[in-house]
Amino acid sequence: MKNNKITSRADNFAKWYTDVVKSAQLAEYSSVKGCVILEPNGYAIWENMQKNMDKLFKDCGHSNVYLPVFIPESLLQKEGELVSGFAPEVAWITRGGSSVLEERLAFRPTSESLFCDYYKNKVKSYRDLPKLYNQWCSVVRWEKETRPFLRSREFLWQEGHTAHATAKEAQEETQRMLDVYKEFHERFLAIPVITGRKTEKEKFAGAEYTLTIETLMQNGICLQSGTSHYFGQKFAKAYDVKFLNEKNELDYVYQTSWGTTTRMIGAVIMVHGDDAGLVLPPRIAPKQVVIIGIGNVSEKVNEVYNTLKENNISVYIDDSDKTPGFKFAEAEVNGIPVRIEIGERDLAKNIITLVRRDTREKIEINVNENIAEVVEKLLETIHDDMFNRAKERMENRIYEARTLEEVNNIIENTPGFIKADWCGKEECELKYKEIHGIKSRCILENEKPLEGVCPVCGEKADKLVMWGIQY
Amino acid sequence: MKNNKITSRADNFAKWYTDVVKSAQLAEYSSVKGCVILEPNGYAIWENMQKNMDKLFKDCGHSNVYLPVFIPESLLQKEGELVSGFAPEVAWITRGGSSVLEERLAFRPTSESLFCDYYKNKVKSYRDLPKLYNQWCSVVRWEKETRPFLRSREFLWQEGHTAHATAKEAQEETQRMLDVYKEFHERFLAIPVITGRKTEKEKFAGAEYTLTIETLMQNGICLQSGTSHYFGQKFAKAYDVKFLNEKNELDYVYQTSWGTTTRMIGAVIMVHGDDAGLVLPPRIAPKQVVIIGIGNVSEKVNEVYNTLKENNISVYIDDSDKTPGFKFAEAEVNGIPVRIEIGERDLAKNIITLVRRDTREKIEINVNENIAEVVEKLLETIHDDMFNRAKERMENRIYEARTLEEVNNIIENTPGFIKADWCGKEECELKYKEIHGIKSRCILENEKPLEGVCPVCGEKADKLVMWGIQY
Repeated sequence: MKNNKITSRADNFAKWYTDVVKSAQLAEYSSVKGCVILEPNGYAIWENMQKNMDKLFKDCGHSNVYLPVFIPESLLQKEGELVSGFAPEVAWITRGGSSVLEERLAFRPTSESLFCDYYKNKVKSYRDLPKLYNQWCSVVRWEKETRPFLRSREFLWQEGHTAHATAKEAQEETQRMLDVYKEFHERFLAIPVITGRKTEKEKFAGAEYTLTIETLMQNGICLQSGTSHYFGQKFAKAYDVKFLNEKNELDYVYQTSWGTTTRMIGAVIMVHGDDAGLVLPPRIAPKQVVIIGIGNVSEKVNEVYNTLKENNISVYIDDSDKTPGFKFAEAEVNGIPVRIEIGERDLAKNIITLVRRDTREKIEINVNENIAEVVEKLLETIHDDMFNRAKERMENRIYEARTLEEVNNIIENTPGFIKADWCGKEECELKYKEIHGIKSRCILENEKPLEGVCPVCGEKADKLVMWGIQY
Repeated sequence: MKNNKITSRADNFAKWYTDVVKSAQLAEYSSVKGCVILEPNGYAIWENMQKNMDKLFKDCGHSNVYLPVFIPESLLQKEGELVSGFAPEVAWITRGGSSVLEERLAFRPTSESLFCDYYKNKVKSYRDLPKLYNQWCSVVRWEKETRPFLRSREFLWQEGHTAHATAKEAQEETQRMLDVYKEFHERFLAIPVITGRKTEKEKFAGAEYTLTIETLMQNGICLQSGTSHYFGQKFAKAYDVKFLNEKNELDYVYQTSWGTTTRMIGAVIMVHGDDAGLVLPPRIAPKQVVIIGIGNVSEKVNEVYNTLKENNISVYIDDSDKTPGFKFAEAEVNGIPVRIEIGERDLAKNIITLVRRDTREKIEINVNENIAEVVEKLLETIHDDMFNRAKERMENRIYEARTLEEVNNIIENTPGFIKADWCGKEECELKYKEIHGIKSRCILENEKPLEGVCPVCGEKADKLVMWGIQY
């Protein structure tokens, strides 16, 4: 629980990350290979993410559903690209009770096939559209390597699946949900994002195109933090999802899907954390404030606690028998946004001390001030400051490169997002991989190429692409 | 969507049930054998159940966690009774990606083994206790027969798993969570319950004892609606979960587990529903009020909508192009507790009509009345009335029987809960099964035997047992 358990970011960022995950008790390795346990502190962050994101989904008309975890192999195989994209990662159920199954069942790696199968039965006419459904569940992808929150064989996520009567509407939905993800990252996680379109190579298997939000960790490594896919009629044709349109003609529906995962917790750790541990953005912090009394001050501690609680601030009192110093350190490791210290001697002078987790700044206030108002404002300020610092850090690490040598220099010094022109050929895209495994993050559709020349082949380039090393 | 789709309860209760499930769009069969789809209307009820129950859990100190869905076979096998209890129902994952797994993995049928494995690493001393964890997830049991909400191969549930330093504390927890389930059923589902202890034959595999809440459907069939298990040190010994107690001695922890499932939605349907469809208890109804305007009244409709919304009443306007009659029927099928009809002619006379779903009673109010207050009170009244009617119905169907012939007569006429003495022998318990499959529901620990004589063997009986046919 103590700070000295945590490796510094400068010494070893990867070790720092796992130290924070363990010290803040967010997740624990399990004896199930490739799977982690989400502990109370980690799961509570996910609950807050769920609650707030779910509200954003519902505000734009989505409903939640729950579809089976099993997908019969024959159903999964109907869409060729999806299958070839996911086949190497699927876990198979082959026995139920004492009998061998006639057809093996996939543990859902994603649910396009099941939603199509469902829509096929429910959608008859344009009046049944749009279907705007979302599902919170766990999915399995048989990964080789595990890193808590970033990559594990089973993880929690939400997957939206929608069906529409027109291509235009479905494309608008694809963009809308990307915007929701962006808003969620900025407003709740205090994380700035880069948005764009995935290249053909990096898009979701089976999608016509994939939009993405990309975030930058403090070590300059990129994280794909949410994707929104437009399917056109591809899946509808594979799964035969037809409807009568307004002209009374049979047509296939137009579909989208979009998803975010517990990996966002990893982003929160690596965007905001410091050498003392976790730093939680106030709006998703399960506990926003901790009160620590020193000496005979329990009356005041309780009074402050009640005042904050009445004002819907998530607060707790650390009245354990640990020393104040230990309590301070623990609150820091756990990333509690505001620590209130009420000391006997300070109180005699009418002083209460507030300590910000993000800056560790101490703020002395008079006991007669409106503490709920002060704390509320402070939480807002902390959020804004965290976002602005993260934004500045990200912007300082967005580079422009005109040659592969420049790309290489950037990556070897201070990696980050690298803008470079691209001709559109996959062979040129792949060439970047040789430089420390760089991949394209997204095509920046609203920006013009730097020079209009591909740094790899020297040919004409009409696209500007963001490149980077990814988790 | 229309009433005439629904079979009457008197004609065929089982058909009525599936008709309601389909007409109210709660669940849909999927093409995955044995699994159903929870549709928006059904899943929204589960969300409300979750939200309210989760608050009750947290109010008594529980935290949520998420443990892997996979259980290695060797881990599952450590507790012999648990394995033999669940083995016939386990689904096995044998392949991951392209390779055959060295050890096959169970899809969790329940998570005692994983929680033990987790606690083993986390609990060192009495200071680490109690561990009060809960998990919301899906579980799989390879059932032969499927009935939406009541029985399916995959279902959603919550499973609480706690570890304590003393037997007393763990036993108190077992009782506390049963009380929470009882409170939840009464206060949110408006369903009265019978509580008691399962017989040795009916208890959870591996438990020292199992407490249960049992509910009665309108057709006199019983439903086990929630169970709470005391494990003593049985699992701790199997999984080696030790801690240093206050006397600095190594001891095994004392454990409990407790669970409820989406089956509660089935109970809501069968306790409250009528021949027109679903009747939802107001406190878990996703939509509590529907407003239907007739004629040129949109201004008033919007005004009422906004007033109710501001007062945190869950309300929607049905402004579709269907006829008022169709809208009324649809709101009835879906079980919306209160329907507000605003008609042009009524409005000219300053009248708005409220219709209760449970009694179908019409209440005319003056437009100048405080409508939010009226609706709030009406929702409370509906809840209370629904509970009282269900309670009266249940009490009218609690019988006493002194001979097996009496038991048989009751079951063949109007089945329900039957109280009869029991000597404690399993062979006598099994004898009931020959009468239309009757099983013991629970031992009524706070009640004295009727005569002190077992109706089966005629020997001394010191227990009073509740018997019934179960889903």
